[in-house]
Amino acid sequence: MVKKIKQGPKVNINQPLIIAGPCSVENYDIMDKTVKFLKELGIEYIRGGAFKPRTSPYSFQGLGMEGIEILEDMKKKYGVKIVSEILDIRDLEEMIDSIDIIQVGSRNMYNYPLLKELGRIKKPILLKRGISATIDEWLNAAEYIALEGNTDIILCERGIRTFENYTRNTLDLNCVPVVKQRTNLAIIVDPSHGTGRRELVKPLSLAAIAAGADGLLIEVHPDPDNALSDGFQSLNFEEFKDTYNKVISTYHCVNTR
Amino acid sequence: MVKKIKQGPKVNINQPLIIAGPCSVENYDIMDKTVKFLKELGIEYIRGGAFKPRTSPYSFQGLGMEGIEILEDMKKKYGVKIVSEILDIRDLEEMIDSIDIIQVGSRNMYNYPLLKELGRIKKPILLKRGISATIDEWLNAAEYIALEGNTDIILCERGIRTFENYTRNTLDLNCVPVVKQRTNLAIIVDPSHGTGRRELVKPLSLAAIAAGADGLLIEVHPDPDNALSDGFQSLNFEEFKDTYNKVISTYHCVNTR
Amino acid sequence: MVKKIKQGPKVNINQPLIIAGPCSVENYDIMDKTVKFLKELGIEYIRGGAFKPRTSPYSFQGLGMEGIEILEDMKKKYGVKIVSEILDIRDLEEMIDSIDIIQVGSRNMYNYPLLKELGRIKKPILLKRGISATIDEWLNAAEYIALEGNTDIILCERGIRTFENYTRNTLDLNCVPVVKQRTNLAIIVDPSHGTGRRELVKPLSLAAIAAGADGLLIEVHPDPDNALSDGFQSLNFEEFKDTYNKVISTYHCVNTR
Amino acid sequence: MVKKIKQGPKVNINQPLIIAGPCSVENYDIMDKTVKFLKELGIEYIRGGAFKPRTSPYSFQGLGMEGIEILEDMKKKYGVKIVSEILDIRDLEEMIDSIDIIQVGSRNMYNYPLLKELGRIKKPILLKRGISATIDEWLNAAEYIALEGNTDIILCERGIRTFENYTRNTLDLNCVPVVKQRTNLAIIVDPSHGTGRRELVKPLSLAAIAAGADGLLIEVHPDPDNALSDGFQSLNFEEFKDTYNKVISTYHCVNTR
Repeated sequence: MVKKIKQGPKVNINQPLIIAGPCSVENYDIMDKTVKFLKELGIEYIRGGAFKPRTSPYSFQGLGMEGIEILEDMKKKYGVKIVSEILDIRDLEEMIDSIDIIQVGSRNMYNYPLLKELGRIKKPILLKRGISATIDEWLNAAEYIALEGNTDIILCERGIRTFENYTRNTLDLNCVPVVKQRTNLAIIVDPSHGTGRRELVKPLSLAAIAAGADGLLIEVHPDPDNALSDGFQSLNFEEFKDTYNKVISTYHCVNTR
Repeated sequence: MVKKIKQGPKVNINQPLIIAGPCSVENYDIMDKTVKFLKELGIEYIRGGAFKPRTSPYSFQGLGMEGIEILEDMKKKYGVKIVSEILDIRDLEEMIDSIDIIQVGSRNMYNYPLLKELGRIKKPILLKRGISATIDEWLNAAEYIALEGNTDIILCERGIRTFENYTRNTLDLNCVPVVKQRTNLAIIVDPSHGTGRRELVKPLSLAAIAAGADGLLIEVHPDPDNALSDGFQSLNFEEFKDTYNKVISTYHCVNTR
Repeated sequence: MVKKIKQGPKVNINQPLIIAGPCSVENYDIMDKTVKFLKELGIEYIRGGAFKPRTSPYSFQGLGMEGIEILEDMKKKYGVKIVSEILDIRDLEEMIDSIDIIQVGSRNMYNYPLLKELGRIKKPILLKRGISATIDEWLNAAEYIALEGNTDIILCERGIRTFENYTRNTLDLNCVPVVKQRTNLAIIVDPSHGTGRRELVKPLSLAAIAAGADGLLIEVHPDPDNALSDGFQSLNFEEFKDTYNKVISTYHCVNTR
Repeated sequence: MVKKIKQGPKVNINQPLIIAGPCSVENYDIMDKTVKFLKELGIEYIRGGAFKPRTSPYSFQGLGMEGIEILEDMKKKYGVKIVSEILDIRDLEEMIDSIDIIQVGSRNMYNYPLLKELGRIKKPILLKRGISATIDEWLNAAEYIALEGNTDIILCERGIRTFENYTRNTLDLNCVPVVKQRTNLAIIVDPSHGTGRRELVKPLSLAAIAAGADGLLIEVHPDPDNALSDGFQSLNFEEFKDTYNKVISTYHCVNTR
């Protein structure tokens, strides 16, 4: 069923892939402060949304190409790699050179024309699981990309929609070993969206790593309570540092025979 | 929250809007046979997918623009109106003149760039509910279209994803009166996808009409068992005729004083 | 799989089975006022909970045997039939003579010792669907009763738990024709719990009847806003009368060839 | 809302509580072989169902009191502690002396008369989460027990029902830190039911521990492929030993500051 992602080169990772940063790129200063902090901690991959898919058309929609430019500044200044989401297939050409890993968000997992287009480029794709996508549908979405030639795909579990409403979503860690068994792809976990609650990010980060995840995608903001989007699930610097250190030690503990 | 679709012109329908046809346009003959039958029965709106979003990239993906041409032939030959789905925002210009109602499928309900583009044209939009979209998210998706200027939107409930797996989806008829109370838009129901079982289409069609739906979207095929997609939920001609007649009488019964 | 409920005597109903009344028996006066009203309208079956399963132990738990006595008074005074829920298997002996149809609530659908006990008595059982029970599990629960000898079972769909939270539950009308096809049992629908919103009860009552339901279970209260439980989903007398009349006309419309 | 379980004595555990054994007590030999193996490994708590709640009345229903006797034999022979499920409130008196921790299964989480009765005894209660119970409902169920006097309650997450059907249930590890924050109770995790797939039990066991769980409930069988119930999710001895060792090392890694 999903031949290409089963037969592709096996992912080979010997340390967790940690991607961190604010939900959206809000302005230069916040981004600069955050990347400086993360870089000093040893984080190489920075996330930040320039194009934000929001439920309401009246909510903050991201800075667009202006946000991409800020991300590019960070790249030059700190030598980090940039992970950012593509919303509109027509933006690909303009943003592709600035971005190191192109993220397909949960809402676009079924956007097959976009997936096919991303299969024809030579950049890693971070493919988030649709909010109520079965594992089969998710793997088939990856296959849409792979079939066009690009097998450099990182899957990202970000919580699924269930009846439980104390948490924003229900993080499905069952899928982590399933993905490892059924594909050669890397899989990371986003505990920020997966729980929607700041205080749950650390324990679920550790759980994801223990389940066998290859890495994490975590929202960090210098002042979460005043973030323009998703502040309630973002860690501040101190919380992130504490989580990060524990993640690294858990990773080594679990992955040592 | 959803101002435009609340304040727009109230839908004014005095007979149910019935849209029928095969899941996908397979070839000229099947389409011709089906439209001939439907037209004689009095059906004015024909559905047929030229671009098919399929879970697996190895499944039949539709005839593409060739399918659109067949639909245009039907339009000329029988004077019917055509409802067909847009998958790729870049196809809009090429397909717009041939299509009378542009369908946004369940997988694209969160595709905001596409919704915004459709808000700038002057054609009715059939907006299906996302497979696990809350009513709020769905209405906000309609608002994305309306905010750009196009308030000619028909909502379509097509079943939501739940734990129940005897049926393909769970048709949510609760949403019908909710939509009527919260917006001025029309709402129709798709019992074919909503149940995923041919034998349930008739009773759920009647139920939808009794709940206050303005119409139905029903899959019909001359030979459902040999359809290239979704045959298990398509009615044959005789079943459709029987369903249609009962729908009309139920509509008049329920909507009389 | 479910032999007894498939082979049992086919239900034979030529008018809808309407069961109405307050969520819980609160006191004699409210019950008297409600039953008087319903009886005059032609309703023969009265619901009223004496033992109430409540999520919190601090909520009103029902009047217990005192409530059963009030129900018995209604029976004598108005000649109606009583439908009431059993919570504790040990209460069966004490309550059995007062109740005409014994209700198994959603929370007890998997309570197999209770089901087996009810299979050994000679009273009709109203078996509500568990809040997230599959149709298969529900039919098997009925089979637990039937296998002990009692096939006089009425199934009741009351909404299932999904991600949608605008409504209290999602009424699953797909299950109505499924139950009719797979068993000989009667099936009724509870739009009060199934929607959890007063203003949705009428349209969903009509939808249930149009889907083929044999009847309805509806909450009615003289003063819903001051009800001790579930007032937000109860109809007042006028609303009930309006709904009832429309239900009857829809039933005859749909069930006339 | 849930006062008693919030104010009760804080759980004080310095090693994980591991409960293991077959899904159901099948016969003396299998039980003897399993307990011998587990005891040698250092496991003190043995699970085994004598009364089995099964979806179909035609499936194996457990050995009943005969199974309880076998469990009592194990207790005497090996000095282990016994965890077993109560299905019928009327069995309590007969089984109470033989059982060290009384389990309330998923199907009985809403069985309030049973919970109240268990609140009046002096034995620890293992309260499994209902198959689609919200965290709030689950904590309130514990409060039903605690309010009667017994606060010696261990909560057990065992997977919730979602749309995903590759796994039997979706293990919800978000709930682990939530329970720790909102109550003083212990919480353990059942990855056997939570995944329904043998090959997922080890990674999810580690994940549960990393999320902060106080222990695990794991199904072990000498010959899983021939088990009378749930063999597909049971570990054989070798798999269990491997999992157990890794669980202990992960527990110490995560719980060492």
